[in-house]
Amino acid sequence: MTSTLQERIENPFLRSKVVPVEEAVKHIADGHTIAISGFTKSGEPKTVLPALAYHFSQTAPDSRITLLSGASLSEDVEGPLAPYIRKRGPYMSSAASRKRIHTGEMDFTDVHLSAFARNLMYGFYGEIDVAVVEVSRIRPDGSIILTSSVGVSVEALARAKKIILEVNTAVPNYTGFHDIVLPTVHPKVGWPLPLVNVRDRIGTPYVEFDIQKVVAVVESRTPDHPVPFKAADATDKRIAQNVIAFLLQCKEQFDWGKRLPPIQSGVGNVANAIIGELYDSPFQKIRFWTEVFQDGMLRYIEDDAKFECASSTAVSFSAEGRQRFQHLFDRCRDRLVLRPMWLSNSPEIISRLFVIAMNTPIEVDMYGHVNSTHIDGSRIVNGLGGSGDFFRNAYLSIVHTPSTRRLRDGRTVSCVMPYVRHIDHTEHDIKCVVTEQGYALNMDIRSPKRRAIDIIDRCAHPHFRPLLHAYLKMAGPGDEPRATDMKSLESWWADYEAACRNFPAPAAPAAYSGE
Amino acid sequence: MTSTLQERIENPFLRSKVVPVEEAVKHIADGHTIAISGFTKSGEPKTVLPALAYHFSQTAPDSRITLLSGASLSEDVEGPLAPYIRKRGPYMSSAASRKRIHTGEMDFTDVHLSAFARNLMYGFYGEIDVAVVEVSRIRPDGSIILTSSVGVSVEALARAKKIILEVNTAVPNYTGFHDIVLPTVHPKVGWPLPLVNVRDRIGTPYVEFDIQKVVAVVESRTPDHPVPFKAADATDKRIAQNVIAFLLQCKEQFDWGKRLPPIQSGVGNVANAIIGELYDSPFQKIRFWTEVFQDGMLRYIEDDAKFECASSTAVSFSAEGRQRFQHLFDRCRDRLVLRPMWLSNSPEIISRLFVIAMNTPIEVDMYGHVNSTHIDGSRIVNGLGGSGDFFRNAYLSIVHTPSTRRLRDGRTVSCVMPYVRHIDHTEHDIKCVVTEQGYALNMDIRSPKRRAIDIIDRCAHPHFRPLLHAYLKMAGPGDEPRATDMKSLESWWADYEAACRNFPAPAAPAAYSGE
Repeated sequence: MTSTLQERIENPFLRSKVVPVEEAVKHIADGHTIAISGFTKSGEPKTVLPALAYHFSQTAPDSRITLLSGASLSEDVEGPLAPYIRKRGPYMSSAASRKRIHTGEMDFTDVHLSAFARNLMYGFYGEIDVAVVEVSRIRPDGSIILTSSVGVSVEALARAKKIILEVNTAVPNYTGFHDIVLPTVHPKVGWPLPLVNVRDRIGTPYVEFDIQKVVAVVESRTPDHPVPFKAADATDKRIAQNVIAFLLQCKEQFDWGKRLPPIQSGVGNVANAIIGELYDSPFQKIRFWTEVFQDGMLRYIEDDAKFECASSTAVSFSAEGRQRFQHLFDRCRDRLVLRPMWLSNSPEIISRLFVIAMNTPIEVDMYGHVNSTHIDGSRIVNGLGGSGDFFRNAYLSIVHTPSTRRLRDGRTVSCVMPYVRHIDHTEHDIKCVVTEQGYALNMDIRSPKRRAIDIIDRCAHPHFRPLLHAYLKMAGPGDEPRATDMKSLESWWADYEAACRNFPAPAAPAAYSGE
Repeated sequence: MTSTLQERIENPFLRSKVVPVEEAVKHIADGHTIAISGFTKSGEPKTVLPALAYHFSQTAPDSRITLLSGASLSEDVEGPLAPYIRKRGPYMSSAASRKRIHTGEMDFTDVHLSAFARNLMYGFYGEIDVAVVEVSRIRPDGSIILTSSVGVSVEALARAKKIILEVNTAVPNYTGFHDIVLPTVHPKVGWPLPLVNVRDRIGTPYVEFDIQKVVAVVESRTPDHPVPFKAADATDKRIAQNVIAFLLQCKEQFDWGKRLPPIQSGVGNVANAIIGELYDSPFQKIRFWTEVFQDGMLRYIEDDAKFECASSTAVSFSAEGRQRFQHLFDRCRDRLVLRPMWLSNSPEIISRLFVIAMNTPIEVDMYGHVNSTHIDGSRIVNGLGGSGDFFRNAYLSIVHTPSTRRLRDGRTVSCVMPYVRHIDHTEHDIKCVVTEQGYALNMDIRSPKRRAIDIIDRCAHPHFRPLLHAYLKMAGPGDEPRATDMKSLESWWADYEAACRNFPAPAAPAAYSGE
C-alpha cells in the first residue's frame, strides 16, 4: 500500500518544495507557535518533530516553542521535543511533558477539544507561525489528503503563516476517508451543520489551503506508532455488562424500537470491553459517533447486520489492529468517516444525533461529580480531551469505572469518593454511574443526598460503603452537604487510609490507562 | 389591553371547558407530576397554583406532587404550594421551597435549562399527569398564544395526559411574539435548526397540541408579579466598565469590525449595570440572545441605531418596566422573539451565533472554577439555570462579581477564593473573570498556577490578595495544586476569618441577588 514520494506528490510546485527534514526544521525557531496534525498518536508528524528536537539540541538548546496538536502524540514524537516546549495544549499523554507540566516548566492548558479547535480558528491562541501536517497525498491542484487523523490539521493549515508538509509514503493513501469543513469565524455568519446521520458527508474529502505558504515538503517513511491494546479482564467485563443492562432498560423505557442511538466510546480496557459486549448484545445496526475508531470496532466492519457506520476524528490501532485495518481498508472507507475534531466533538451534532457517551474517569463522587484529569486533585494526567464535549451534550452520559483501583504501593483506593478533589464534569452532565458492582441513575428528580445513597449502595465497593455512608452522615443537613469540621474530616481520612490498606485481595486492576 | 374571556377564547370546544378554578384543581391529585408555564416569574399559572394549594390544604393536606416549571416562580405562586411539592425541578427562587429543600423534605434536581426541556420531552422525568399553562388567547382551531414566557410550556402541552389552560385576560394579547418549535425525540431523526440570525423565526407563533386533552379552562385576572429592579451602585458600574473594556479589547484583537456578537446577560444589578454601560459604549446595532428580556433593555427598543433585535424565553419587568413595556408593546413585537427555553438556551445556537455570555456567581476561585448555586458549598440558593448552557457554548464567557460581599453578620468575604466549595462551571468554560478591580483572561495557553496569580492580582480585593498568594504558596507544586495539609489549612482559614472581620469599610454590596 506504500508508494513513492513522486507518486504521492501530484502538484509540481509542492514537488519543488521537497527538502531533507534537516532543512525543513530550520523554519521553526525559538518563540514560535506551531500547530500540528495528530490525534491519539495517529497522523502525527513523525519525522519533522523528532528532527526539530535534534535541531534544537544541536543549534539552539534554549529554544522554547508553543505546541498545539489535535490530541495526544506518541512518546517517540513528543518525548524528545518536550524540553523545548514552553506552552502546550489541548491534550497530551507524554510522560516527558507531564513531568515538565508538574514542575511548572511547561504551561499546559486543558481545553474541551471542540472548543480548542474553534478557539484556534478564532485567534484566541494568537498567530500560528508554522503548521506541520502529515499528508498521504498531494493532489494536482495542491490540495491534500490527510492520513489517519484529522484533529486540528485543517485549522492549522488555514491559520499558519508557514506550512511544512510531511508526506508519509509508508501509510496507505487515505483518499475518500475524510470529510473536511472549517468552523466559521465571527463576524461571518455561522450556519447550521447539515448533518443528520452518522454517515452524512458535509464537506470535501481533501483540504484546500494557500499552497504559497508551504515552505517545505519532507518525506516520512514511519508508520503510525501502535497504541497498546489490553484485553478486558473480569471486572471490565462486568462493567460492560452493566452498561448493556442500562442500555436495554432505556430501550424499553424510552421506546427506542430497534434503533440504538450512536455510541461514543472512550479509550482503554473498559471501553474495549463495552465494545465487545455490545457486539454480543441484541442491538443491531450499531453506529459509532466517536473520537477514535479503534481495534475493538474492526470486527463490526465485517458484519453488515451488526454495524451500520462510524464517524471519528482518528483511527488508532495496535500493531495487530493495523494489519487487520489494512486488510479491511476498502470496507472501512465505505463505512467510516474521519472528520475535524471540532465536528467529531461538536455539541450541535452530538445533541442532534442523540449520542450515548461513555468515558472512564480517575474517580467519581457520591453526588456524581467526575474527576477525569487530576491525580490527588493536583497533578494532571492527560487532560479531559473530548469527555466534556460528549458528557454534556449526550442523550445519555455514562461514567464507568471499576469501584476500586490498586495503587503501585499495594493500597487499594475507592473510585467512588465522598468528593472528588478536582472536578471536570459536574453531576449535571452525568446520567448514569457504572461500576462492576452495578449502576446508579441521575436522570429523574432526586435530591443530591438520595442520589448519593444510591451511588454508594449500587456502585461503591462493599468494603468502602460503610465509610461513605459515615461521611454522608457527618456532612449533616443541606441539599448537597459537605463535611467541614476539620477534626472529623481528619479522622475520616485516617479511617479511609486504613481501609485502603486492609482491602481484601484480589483487588480490581488499574482503571485509568493514562496513569 | 385587557379583554373579556369570550374574546380571548375563539374555539367553541375549549369555551365549553371553562370552569371555576376550584373545579379545575380537582384534576390534580396526590402523586401527580405537573408541568407548568412560567419563567422568572413571568407567564406562570397565577390562578390555578394558589387555588391548588388551597384545595390541598382543605381536602388532602398529605398530598405531594412533582412540580416541573420553566424556571423560577413568584413567591405568591410557589410559596403556598411548597408544602405539597415532593419533587421540584429545574430552578426555583422561592424561600419556602428552598427551606424544604435544605431540610430534605423536597427533592430538587438542578439541571441545565436546555437539557431539562429536552429531558422532559425524552420522558426522563416519567409521565406528565397534568400541564397547567397560562395563555393569552385561544385561536379558532384551538391552538394557543402564550403570554410573557415560553419556558417548557410547549413540552408540557405535548407530553401531558391532561391539560388545564389558564386564560389571562389581564395581560396583553401576545400574538406575534413567539417562535414555537419542539425538540425532536429519538428514534426520530434530529434536524439542524435553520436559525442563523437573532431575529430569525423557525417555528409557529402559536402552539398546536391535542385539545381533547384539555380538562379545564379557567380565567385569570392577575397580571405577572413584578420583579424587583435595583439600580446599579458604584461597584456595579466599575464591573460593567471593566466588562466593556474587555469587549473593546476583543473587538480590536479579533477583528470584529463593527459587529458586536449577540449578548447574553444574566439577571441582577450587575447585569443591569452592564446593559446600561453597553448603551453608552461605542457599540451599535446591539443584539441580545438571552434568557430574559428585562427593564434595562427597554431603552434599546426605542433606539434603532443602538439596537437591532433580541431573543429570549421570557420578558420580566418591574412594575415600572411593565408600564413602559405596554407602551412599547408593538415596537417590542417587531424586535423581540420569545422562544422555548430549549431553543433560547440551545448549545447549537449559542455557539453558532457567537454569543457573549455573562453571569454573576456566588464565588469564583483563583483557578477560574465557578460556584453559581451553593452557599458554603452545601445549601442551594436557586439553581444554575441557563448559566452553564451559555458559559460552555459561548464565544466569550464572562463571570462577573464584586470582589467582596458583605454578609448580614457584618463580615465581608472574598468572592475570589482559593477554591470554591461547590463547582457548577469548571475553568474550561470561563474565558474572563471580572470584578470591580479589573479583569483576568483565561483564553490563551497558560498554566493554572499562572492563571491563579493573574486572577488574584487583577480581580481579588487588595485586602485579600496576600492571603490568596499565601494559599497558593502553601499548595506547593503540581499544575493545579491544592493545599492538603489539614493543620496549615485550618490555620489559613483562621487567618481568612480574621481578615473577613477586619475588612476596611465601606464594603461592597451584596453580589448575589438570590441570597
